[in-house]
Amino acid sequence: MPPPAVDPTLRVQTQNRVVTALLQHLPAHALLWHTEDTVPYECDGLTAYRERPLLVALPETEAQVAAVLQTCHQLNIPVVARGAGTGLSGGAMPHAQGVTLALAKFKSILKIDPVARTARVQCGVRNLAISEAAAAHGLYYAPDPSSQIACTIGGNVAENSGGVHCLKYGLTLHNVLRVRGFTMEGEAIEFGSEALDAAGLDLLSLVIGSEGMLAVITDVTVKLIPKPPLARCIMASFDDVRRAGDAVAQIIAAGIIPAGLEMMDKPMTAAVEDFVHAGYDLSAEAILLCESDGTPEEVAEEVARIQAVLVASGATRIEVSADEAQRLRFWSGRKNAFPASGRISPDYMCMDSTIPRKNLAAILLAIQEMEQKYQLRCANVFHAGDGNLHPLILFDGADPDQLRRCEEFGAEILETSVALGGTVTGEHGVGIEKLNSMCVQFSAEENAQMQAVKQAFDPAELLNPGKVIPTLHRCAEYGRMHVRRGLLAHPDLPRF
Amino acid sequence: MPPPAVDPTLRVQTQNRVVTALLQHLPAHALLWHTEDTVPYECDGLTAYRERPLLVALPETEAQVAAVLQTCHQLNIPVVARGAGTGLSGGAMPHAQGVTLALAKFKSILKIDPVARTARVQCGVRNLAISEAAAAHGLYYAPDPSSQIACTIGGNVAENSGGVHCLKYGLTLHNVLRVRGFTMEGEAIEFGSEALDAAGLDLLSLVIGSEGMLAVITDVTVKLIPKPPLARCIMASFDDVRRAGDAVAQIIAAGIIPAGLEMMDKPMTAAVEDFVHAGYDLSAEAILLCESDGTPEEVAEEVARIQAVLVASGATRIEVSADEAQRLRFWSGRKNAFPASGRISPDYMCMDSTIPRKNLAAILLAIQEMEQKYQLRCANVFHAGDGNLHPLILFDGADPDQLRRCEEFGAEILETSVALGGTVTGEHGVGIEKLNSMCVQFSAEENAQMQAVKQAFDPAELLNPGKVIPTLHRCAEYGRMHVRRGLLAHPDLPRF
Repeated sequence: MPPPAVDPTLRVQTQNRVVTALLQHLPAHALLWHTEDTVPYECDGLTAYRERPLLVALPETEAQVAAVLQTCHQLNIPVVARGAGTGLSGGAMPHAQGVTLALAKFKSILKIDPVARTARVQCGVRNLAISEAAAAHGLYYAPDPSSQIACTIGGNVAENSGGVHCLKYGLTLHNVLRVRGFTMEGEAIEFGSEALDAAGLDLLSLVIGSEGMLAVITDVTVKLIPKPPLARCIMASFDDVRRAGDAVAQIIAAGIIPAGLEMMDKPMTAAVEDFVHAGYDLSAEAILLCESDGTPEEVAEEVARIQAVLVASGATRIEVSADEAQRLRFWSGRKNAFPASGRISPDYMCMDSTIPRKNLAAILLAIQEMEQKYQLRCANVFHAGDGNLHPLILFDGADPDQLRRCEEFGAEILETSVALGGTVTGEHGVGIEKLNSMCVQFSAEENAQMQAVKQAFDPAELLNPGKVIPTLHRCAEYGRMHVRRGLLAHPDLPRF
Repeated sequence: MPPPAVDPTLRVQTQNRVVTALLQHLPAHALLWHTEDTVPYECDGLTAYRERPLLVALPETEAQVAAVLQTCHQLNIPVVARGAGTGLSGGAMPHAQGVTLALAKFKSILKIDPVARTARVQCGVRNLAISEAAAAHGLYYAPDPSSQIACTIGGNVAENSGGVHCLKYGLTLHNVLRVRGFTMEGEAIEFGSEALDAAGLDLLSLVIGSEGMLAVITDVTVKLIPKPPLARCIMASFDDVRRAGDAVAQIIAAGIIPAGLEMMDKPMTAAVEDFVHAGYDLSAEAILLCESDGTPEEVAEEVARIQAVLVASGATRIEVSADEAQRLRFWSGRKNAFPASGRISPDYMCMDSTIPRKNLAAILLAIQEMEQKYQLRCANVFHAGDGNLHPLILFDGADPDQLRRCEEFGAEILETSVALGGTVTGEHGVGIEKLNSMCVQFSAEENAQMQAVKQAFDPAELLNPGKVIPTLHRCAEYGRMHVRRGLLAHPDLPRF
């Protein structure tokens, strides 16, 4: 989706106008507009999509955030908020005629309340920094995206981020009590409260996962939960990926909600084991990692129940972590799955669809058939308990035909996920990457309803425009593309 | 909020026009407009507010629901959806110039899926009927409002209903996967999915708790959870209500999430014990009811931990239910608290605010002071674990001065709750009852933002108009009222 070409002279004029206006409110060092300064901001974790912003603003106070928004609103300039830039769907990709509002300086932990078990932090605080600050009270913040060392809570709120522990402890949505931020007009808003529920429309839930399109969040109050006294990880081997998928469904059907329930197939464990030496069973077609946490009594009882289900489901080998070092080693492989894939293929494309858990075996079978159809390999790593897939399609980007086949493969995984009752994104967001997939998932009326809600917050459509919600025109065009599959790699369409 | 007086001739003319139009789509027996037929619909569980609708439509199919909405949209006639009419905030109170869309005939259980652990049901299915249908698979639907025998899942979705089990298992919001319904224009919409999360804006969360203002929901897919093998209820006595409040905070702070954690004070237990003989300790200033569920091992361990916290918090007596009959007896008192209050006072007003749990003791102290100030008694029954208060102010409605003092007392509880970081409604909704309180809870901008979102779904403002979101004018007027307290009982303002 390249923005319309901008006359370079006009760009400089606009830049000067915006910089001059913003210098009324922000110090000069808080504004970056020379090319060498803005290049580091030209993409987020989805590096395939790049754009240079008109300028980058790095406010230090809420008053400055409000001033940037008010100024841009007056000048009709788009604004794209940015946290750590670790997003995987291009949600923070800059707008060529817009301001990137970088919130890196909002990194204060404002309050840890061990009695209420809450933390109030600024949006730029790293996910893991919250747990580190709460550790003194035996508490932590549960949602744990793989990028938790780097990603910020503001970005987590924007994307409704998940993680390994979300099966038991919920997504960001279930762990955030209150947000404070600013509308595009620069007005302060607060949604949610530290008490149960909130009166009126649930705008807190609406803002969480809204990918920076409704408001700029500066301040987040999260729930903290007690660190369980003990955690154990069970590794189970299966000689058939479908049997592993069924075992996941059986564990949940037995009424067990493990603290984590992940699955990796053979190509994935092979790539990872070579890289981190996690101790995985390389003869298995698939392994499950299943975590139990709680008091020693609870863990002992739950581990026994999980083992019984695994045996009944046909596990060929079961190993329970003997100590904390081994448990962390089991998980180290899972956490390094994406980088490890880079070692077995020149390029890979990571998908992020979800399906109802009961259809895990069906999607695995479908993906195996697609590997034949597109003549490309696919390594699978799943938040299996959540039904959240991360198939990694392996390809060589230097070969245009492989790239084309990879894109078609990816599109078919997403469409199959929707057909199996799932969604096109589990936790990475739509951003710029999955705009076309929204046409598959939602009807024209449903996308129009989302657009109407977007406009209820931002009538001028200046907050992160062109992301998340496809235009009717785009869906119509994609519909045609979809029929004539050979055109999927049309340069005007984002690659997914 | 009396609607503008309507010329009776005009009313009949409008009625004829709407009936004629609807008879194109619905059989005659599905429309009620004679006074004797519409009287049963003139209020919901908040009986203080009554209004006769223009007519009541009782569609039997989704196509008929769509036709009623389309027709009313064309004729500019308001529509108020209605489930079982058990709501406590007047959310289903009819509109004098509007159609009440009664969904009583939508009572099919469409599918129980024991593997996916979901149930898909029509909106008019009773809350308890879902659990009854799922019982054969050892599953149940967790949120359990006190009205669960009668209230419908559609109403639960509209109000984001809670219940005793919501502390551990979440509100309606956390237990609904997907809804299907119709916009005011009669267009079919679906939000959510049976998979984790959903792409794009989270309109599912937005619709849940939107009190019938955004869409009419006809079809709901809910999560089912396994019935725990065992449940035990601990009854603990305290000689000081504040100490009981602190014990609640201590249980949660210890990392225990009981399946239920309720509190009743002495006036409440006295009223209830006389009525249901639950075996309550009548010498206690407050009792806590704390439930543990799970496997026998889990329950034994959790009960021991809870007992330790209760002892450390100063409990004067602790009794654990010895069997299921005793457990149900302990709960029978709690479940009958509202009707029991009718035995000790000619009238009572039930409040529904929430506060952060840590402030339980503070609000109890404040309510005790208010009892002196307003010279009225207040019996307290709480979803204590959630910080959701249900103070019952006891008064005699025949005495205008008592009514006035009761209204001021109620207003002060709500305002104090907001001041303590809480909200004006925990689970009963805003409806017509708490419109003024929304002015206390939210800024003009926040209420305007809710109104904008409402209009994004319903630009003509025909779905349940005049509820939930106060007008700026109303808040300005209430602001004045609030200063001149003596005028709070102004006849134009709803009583709360």
